[in-house]
Amino acid sequence: MEGSLKPMDAEQLREYGHRMVDFIADYYKSIESFPVLSQVKPGYLAELLPESAPNDPECLQDVFDDILQKIIPGITHWQSPDYFAYFPSNSSTAGFLGEMLSAGFNIVGFSWVTSPAATELEVIVLDWLAKMLKLPNQFLSTGKGGGVIQGTASEAILVVLLAARDKILRKVGKKSLEKLVVYASDQTHSALQKACQIAGIFPENLRVLKTDLTSNYALSLEVVSETISSDLSAGLIPFFICATVGTTSSAAVDPISELGKIAKAFNMWFHIDAAYAGSACICPEYRHYIDGVEEADSFGMNAHKWFLTNFDCSVLWVQDRSDLIQSLSTNPEYLKNKASQENAVVDFKDWQIPLGRRFRSLKLWLVLRLYGVANLQSYIRNHIRLAEQFEQLITSDSRFEVVAPRTFSLVCFRLIPPPNDQDNGYKLNHSLLDAVNSSGKIFLSHTVLSGNFILRFAVGAPLTEDRHIKTAWQVLQDQATTLLKDY
Amino acid sequence: MEGSLKPMDAEQLREYGHRMVDFIADYYKSIESFPVLSQVKPGYLAELLPESAPNDPECLQDVFDDILQKIIPGITHWQSPDYFAYFPSNSSTAGFLGEMLSAGFNIVGFSWVTSPAATELEVIVLDWLAKMLKLPNQFLSTGKGGGVIQGTASEAILVVLLAARDKILRKVGKKSLEKLVVYASDQTHSALQKACQIAGIFPENLRVLKTDLTSNYALSLEVVSETISSDLSAGLIPFFICATVGTTSSAAVDPISELGKIAKAFNMWFHIDAAYAGSACICPEYRHYIDGVEEADSFGMNAHKWFLTNFDCSVLWVQDRSDLIQSLSTNPEYLKNKASQENAVVDFKDWQIPLGRRFRSLKLWLVLRLYGVANLQSYIRNHIRLAEQFEQLITSDSRFEVVAPRTFSLVCFRLIPPPNDQDNGYKLNHSLLDAVNSSGKIFLSHTVLSGNFILRFAVGAPLTEDRHIKTAWQVLQDQATTLLKDY
Repeated sequence: MEGSLKPMDAEQLREYGHRMVDFIADYYKSIESFPVLSQVKPGYLAELLPESAPNDPECLQDVFDDILQKIIPGITHWQSPDYFAYFPSNSSTAGFLGEMLSAGFNIVGFSWVTSPAATELEVIVLDWLAKMLKLPNQFLSTGKGGGVIQGTASEAILVVLLAARDKILRKVGKKSLEKLVVYASDQTHSALQKACQIAGIFPENLRVLKTDLTSNYALSLEVVSETISSDLSAGLIPFFICATVGTTSSAAVDPISELGKIAKAFNMWFHIDAAYAGSACICPEYRHYIDGVEEADSFGMNAHKWFLTNFDCSVLWVQDRSDLIQSLSTNPEYLKNKASQENAVVDFKDWQIPLGRRFRSLKLWLVLRLYGVANLQSYIRNHIRLAEQFEQLITSDSRFEVVAPRTFSLVCFRLIPPPNDQDNGYKLNHSLLDAVNSSGKIFLSHTVLSGNFILRFAVGAPLTEDRHIKTAWQVLQDQATTLLKDY
Repeated sequence: MEGSLKPMDAEQLREYGHRMVDFIADYYKSIESFPVLSQVKPGYLAELLPESAPNDPECLQDVFDDILQKIIPGITHWQSPDYFAYFPSNSSTAGFLGEMLSAGFNIVGFSWVTSPAATELEVIVLDWLAKMLKLPNQFLSTGKGGGVIQGTASEAILVVLLAARDKILRKVGKKSLEKLVVYASDQTHSALQKACQIAGIFPENLRVLKTDLTSNYALSLEVVSETISSDLSAGLIPFFICATVGTTSSAAVDPISELGKIAKAFNMWFHIDAAYAGSACICPEYRHYIDGVEEADSFGMNAHKWFLTNFDCSVLWVQDRSDLIQSLSTNPEYLKNKASQENAVVDFKDWQIPLGRRFRSLKLWLVLRLYGVANLQSYIRNHIRLAEQFEQLITSDSRFEVVAPRTFSLVCFRLIPPPNDQDNGYKLNHSLLDAVNSSGKIFLSHTVLSGNFILRFAVGAPLTEDRHIKTAWQVLQDQATTLLKDY
């Protein structure tokens, strides 16, 4: 019976697809009934599934049953309205439709010719978004620059670091790799450290500059300048500054404009990582946080965080696309084609690490069209309003304190430890975090700021409303009362 | 009207989701009516779309209309049964459902705790697939090794190259980077060259060893050994061999077993890239092509090519996961959690370039369950049977020749040029390729082997049946007749 499998039959796709849509819609209807943070123990799933793949087909209903009974208990529900951990990972109907359509076409858009619409829609939509962010014209595709969708901010940082590395090495010689120095703060995302490891930057040449509350955990310009000068005196080669708009721990904002000037003075690559807070900059009242972006060589934000575009969709703009292309292009015979050879088109394979790429611009296009700019602005503002509400609740209870300024939708806070507490509240707040998370009612994550254990409350899930903020606060208060009783 | 946008309303998701399912099912019903290779000109889409995002929401029907009228003409239809270019990029109902579900949950599975089911299902399903491929036990999660889903084979090659680089540099010192040498053939995918660029391997230390028809474009062991010896004499450090099972140009198979022994003798990392042909090795009669995989440090195949799992799903197994983790791990405070700190779990963030990752194991799990091993084997065999058919058609027409042995489902052929043809048929075959592709009826790609321009006919689209092979052959014959008339 060779060839009897019909894996792409349109009517089976239709029937099964409708069933899956209902399954997912039902999941969203019941999402508040699940513990936000999965409560399973390591290794739980191996006990529930067979040791090998079935020889014969199973039916879809059995799979649905298993998803309900075996998979969902192991899901941490990022889309739950009670999810406040890390940063959000937005899903939306528009984003979901875009993912469906992309999976439906299932093209692989490495070169323009492999689906011109995939490349061209990406160019167009990234120009749209650049205009929403009021990025300078240099970042548009009409000039020397342009935007590209990467999988994650990690990949965005890696590709610009590679472009910057190769640009300077072309000048000073590839044996000078050991002299290259990178500058960032101790609040910069670990993606930069990882990118340095990958690119072969010597670990001792990644300058992790200390920040503290006096600068609200932003980079100090004095420290940056002094460090660069001292590295230059030591014969090293400063070549890359990474600034952050909305750090992971506390949503701190580095001084973009001034850092850009320093980078320019020393002829260094200047990257702005606005993975989380970039989305807020589509609102005029938040746009000033990226003033000075003119000086940047590259700017990135994650549309998959707080912009209703399903994961993955990390958006990167560069001022000069030839830097990326010089680092990342290959041109094997089997991919040659007229449009590419004539330089008439963009081939995004040369702007990224992988060769293959999905048709990810569809989901961003659908988000922009089905919601529109005004709605997206009010969506952001609403989350910031909810975070303000939460901040007020914290400050209304003298047992708690807000430990860093709230700039966007992230509130950093802790329980104030009793005087002479052994570890200044470290264990106390760790216990509070564990207690609220293991309740399953809400999910928060943590960080450490100035040596203190801090709870992070990040508003941004698409379903979160006022009532969820109130409930979360109630859970925190109740657990605090219980904890402090034994203290 | 703050907060009035309800982007994740379950009933809207249901309604719109159903409409999108019908749209995609209808697309598959009409897929044969479109030109396989998009016939648009560079820049076509900018003329059809507005210059900026809409301020107010648009309706879904308008978006559907635009997809039909503006996007689909720019699609190159990888799922068309008349698609024979590059290698296939399989879509299937099961794979599509997996993508839907993954987009539905929209979790970000960087650490176990962020959705235990995502990590654990990936571990389990990759063990299942390893068993189907009869990989040695060292590659299973129960030992020191294990499998992980990467986005693409490019990323798989990059992460193992980094692991190998850092392993040897820990021994010889990081300043020896300039001495590290990589070995592969001139048929190896360009992903290796790109990985070397990224990892900072000196370009002159990538040994691109020549192959030819006498070895069916496979690596010559003699050449490999001699090159390694001469590099050692020159004080260089050979550290990485990349073998391919199913090269891009002609699906050549490097001698795995023997290369593995060489790698072992010289204490080098041995990677097997079976991106395309790995899928065939689930059939007992093709398994022997990876005999010797015991000697490999890493082995990769693309389930998104010829295994019905929608793009992206590149599967990588390693013998020793600690090598990957030592190269790629970071451990920032804000990601710390009990399960990770206790080393009780796998955190796939440390096995890959990006931090974030989608729940991709769902689609592979659905493919394995909804189709079963026996059907997947017959699916592969059917494509190989169709390729054999096409090969016979080629050999039945004396104007054509098959130029490399057909091992799997790829046929490399060309029009035999007239005697004393100026460029030995280069232009003739290029013209044939252009003619068939611009007809829109079929889509083939090309390569160059031994200096000759070659057409590649890769069978593997899920909808391809016997009749499509016959039609493709007819198109090729007709165009050949027309071309030769003027020759």
